[in-house]
Amino acid sequence: MMEKLSDETRATLLDPLLATGWAVTDGRDAIHKTFEFADFVEAFAWMTRAAIWAEKWDHHPEWFNVYKRVEVTLTTHDVGGLSTLDVKLARKMDSLAG
Amino acid sequence: MMEKLSDETRATLLDPLLATGWAVTDGRDAIHKTFEFADFVEAFAWMTRAAIWAEKWDHHPEWFNVYKRVEVTLTTHDVGGLSTLDVKLARKMDSLAG
Repeated sequence: MMEKLSDETRATLLDPLLATGWAVTDGRDAIHKTFEFADFVEAFAWMTRAAIWAEKWDHHPEWFNVYKRVEVTLTTHDVGGLSTLDVKLARKMDSLAG
Repeated sequence: MMEKLSDETRATLLDPLLATGWAVTDGRDAIHKTFEFADFVEAFAWMTRAAIWAEKWDHHPEWFNVYKRVEVTLTTHDVGGLSTLDVKLARKMDSLAG
């Protein structure tokens, strides 16, 4: 079963994400990042690719889109906070945007 | 050129949308609606269809998705409020969800 990140693994897993623009969300055990693309088509194409991975892993983002911007928040509702699934999806989103 | 809805046409165009669950947004000349689907795949499939129309009409929504829920806000940034494009996209979103 999925577990919340322990204090021990937390920094090790999150630090590389913080370095790519993710931030820990105020008042929630979650991470968020704003992705910017060239235009709406690029933004939505990225969302579509991320959506397929999200569904495949049964782990879905909270995300807001307007035109070329996508604001993503990741957390694991089942454990009430960050889990390794969030780390995995964040990395995938970064690589899909790369 | 696109224009803000006049006082005259406003009610005539918006009333049918209010009847399908759209609401005028507090503090903004915008309309919003929350769409609920069976699951994430249905929600994202609907977003994809709506995205193609949005791009075709060069008129893009502000939208937030988490799992099977999509919260949409429509307004026309170029005119600083609601235009007939918002009405057109709202109707299309309703029909795609129907």
